[in-house]
Amino acid sequence: MIPSEPILREVENIDWEVHLAARTQRMKSSVIRELLKLTMQPDIISFAGGLPAPEVFPVKEFQDACNKVLETSGPMALQYGPTEGFPPLKADICEQMAKYCILVEPENLLVTSGSQQALDLIGKLFVDANRNIICSRPTYLGALQAWNAYEAEYHAVPLDDDGMRVEMLPDVLKKLKKPGLLYVLPNFHNPGGTTLTQDRRDYLVELARKHDLVIIEDDPYGELRYEGEDLTPLFRMAPERTIYLSTFSKTLAPGLRLAWITAPKPLIARFVQAKQGADLHTGTFVQHVAHEVLASGFIKRHVRKLREIYSSRRNAMLDALTEFMPDETYWSKPEGGMFLWVRCNKQIKTGPFLEKATKFKVAYVPGFAFYPNEEGGSSSMRLNFSYSDEDTIVEGIRRLGTAMKEELAGS
Amino acid sequence: MIPSEPILREVENIDWEVHLAARTQRMKSSVIRELLKLTMQPDIISFAGGLPAPEVFPVKEFQDACNKVLETSGPMALQYGPTEGFPPLKADICEQMAKYCILVEPENLLVTSGSQQALDLIGKLFVDANRNIICSRPTYLGALQAWNAYEAEYHAVPLDDDGMRVEMLPDVLKKLKKPGLLYVLPNFHNPGGTTLTQDRRDYLVELARKHDLVIIEDDPYGELRYEGEDLTPLFRMAPERTIYLSTFSKTLAPGLRLAWITAPKPLIARFVQAKQGADLHTGTFVQHVAHEVLASGFIKRHVRKLREIYSSRRNAMLDALTEFMPDETYWSKPEGGMFLWVRCNKQIKTGPFLEKATKFKVAYVPGFAFYPNEEGGSSSMRLNFSYSDEDTIVEGIRRLGTAMKEELAGS
Repeated sequence: MIPSEPILREVENIDWEVHLAARTQRMKSSVIRELLKLTMQPDIISFAGGLPAPEVFPVKEFQDACNKVLETSGPMALQYGPTEGFPPLKADICEQMAKYCILVEPENLLVTSGSQQALDLIGKLFVDANRNIICSRPTYLGALQAWNAYEAEYHAVPLDDDGMRVEMLPDVLKKLKKPGLLYVLPNFHNPGGTTLTQDRRDYLVELARKHDLVIIEDDPYGELRYEGEDLTPLFRMAPERTIYLSTFSKTLAPGLRLAWITAPKPLIARFVQAKQGADLHTGTFVQHVAHEVLASGFIKRHVRKLREIYSSRRNAMLDALTEFMPDETYWSKPEGGMFLWVRCNKQIKTGPFLEKATKFKVAYVPGFAFYPNEEGGSSSMRLNFSYSDEDTIVEGIRRLGTAMKEELAGS
Repeated sequence: MIPSEPILREVENIDWEVHLAARTQRMKSSVIRELLKLTMQPDIISFAGGLPAPEVFPVKEFQDACNKVLETSGPMALQYGPTEGFPPLKADICEQMAKYCILVEPENLLVTSGSQQALDLIGKLFVDANRNIICSRPTYLGALQAWNAYEAEYHAVPLDDDGMRVEMLPDVLKKLKKPGLLYVLPNFHNPGGTTLTQDRRDYLVELARKHDLVIIEDDPYGELRYEGEDLTPLFRMAPERTIYLSTFSKTLAPGLRLAWITAPKPLIARFVQAKQGADLHTGTFVQHVAHEVLASGFIKRHVRKLREIYSSRRNAMLDALTEFMPDETYWSKPEGGMFLWVRCNKQIKTGPFLEKATKFKVAYVPGFAFYPNEEGGSSSMRLNFSYSDEDTIVEGIRRLGTAMKEELAGS
């Protein structure tokens, strides 16, 4: 019945742009992801991505888990599942959260397809045109991407070594006509590398209560602490108004796309509605497999290993920066996580400078990518220290320093 | 550092509702998914879900594929991946589409986390407040759910045995001030069970060209044809303005959450931007595994098996309906897919009647769930015939018929 001659591979299209919703004007492709493509030449040392070290992924454990899941509950694991998430995995997450003295029940959780989906669902539930989002600058690029699509308006205060400069918030809040969302990355900030001090956490919660703000606590790296002691999660301090996000992407593997939202029960019911419309539910099979891998305390042992490896890499990067960076360059000293932030000599514009850096076979993410509306960060960059081994890190930083020095000499 | 006394499990919450975006008033939990929970008692025969038969899932093939993927490319398969999708899987999809004489290149494809995500991304790109969506009534519930969240406005024409009543569209289109989206389920309509005839397809395309409409062709069941011959996809007839959706949920397994969008290249670039903000990318691991399962023509053999099983089940249901339904009951005779639609005697209101049906240990989805704004379908229901075996189907329809006859006698 179907005519057998092939259709044209590319026909003259209608003008799609006239059909698009107004919000698409705010939606852009992630600078990071586009960059990743450009820097994927094998001879480039890239500090641009946010990739965990693949050689540490527990491949053998996954294989055992896949076999067990398919042998014992194959049909169930391949079938549709509940939007809320696979109950045994939710029980695992409750257990994991208890470590931070966050005692929640499965009904306080929604399993999401990565933390990026959690950010999108927050956008869907909370962000209207010109909705106020209070955040740090720089801030997490993925959050900007998610919320730009809902036409958010950002009010940002700078970061320093102690995290978001909360003392600048009252002035910002005074100007807002309606309450807003307060977006915080308290531990090992992406891209800043900084951790919000306990005093600042206290003050933040005080402000949130006074101004009736919803707190979004984004904590993908909490487990990856290499020194110092855990600080109190905001969720624990203000559970009545906090939405807490975390993920298995950094502790197990990002290719599963498994993360979760912790929130009060009535709000989880709303998130479930939003997720039904967004992707029905997160993959049943990967949830079964993750539950199997997590059995018998695997993650605790695995995180210990990750901490060891990543902290050595962080140290290698910090030492190399000291050795190779030109004068008037400053960088954060993260106590955990995967990133650090470099403020270069003001003469270096990290956007255009990237071309020179790739000629020196090294890559990073220019700072502007992490600023709402790209306003700021023109002499800053984000470096990832989790992906490359120590020798590669030292060589990459050497190349970066050389390129910078040449740039400064030439200008 | 973290205080060790537990936080309250449930604290007095802030009033979340005042913080929510206006669009959340349109977002409701799916009637089907809530129903599914209620009807999950093991002694109920449920025709309510849209579940494939789990006993046919290729569990062994998945196990072999998982082992091969993890042995040969474990770290890659567990790492972050490109938003566009895993290239070898996209090549598989191109090959599959070629069967319908749709010749596309990988750049015409975006892998999505189930077709539900494709519908959500269409909403994000195209649907503004009061955006016109032209569809059938009844129509697919998941599409309503996805687009309600973007405040769509629906203009619906009835279905008959030949699909959407396209001759009623000119009157609808006359009233629209701006162009809109035309949402079509041409093959084995969910919930209607009908297939759009070739004449109607021709006329639909003519109208779309005249009124500059974007066509959304949702085709999850295309492979599951039990009689008759394939008709020409709208994408093939009007590739310049059609977005074609399909999925592995019905042919492989829904628990993977793997589907795809086919569209002109410039539009795929827009979809990629939207997906980056929505969930970064679809799971790497399940894409690797699906590619492995698809190797050496597996799906062709498997679909043959599915067709055999589902067509027997469809026949069993059709025969049982003839035997057990009361007078003045009409149902569609689907040539494929997983559902049929029953119009009951007008005295039966399928919403309230569901309570009686569950007392008779049988369940269905009331028709109103498939109507925009729930306006219509009050005496109709959707029945699924893919999940239960033939004996169970006959017994379930017997129960349903008995309940209906009692209802009619009592009223």
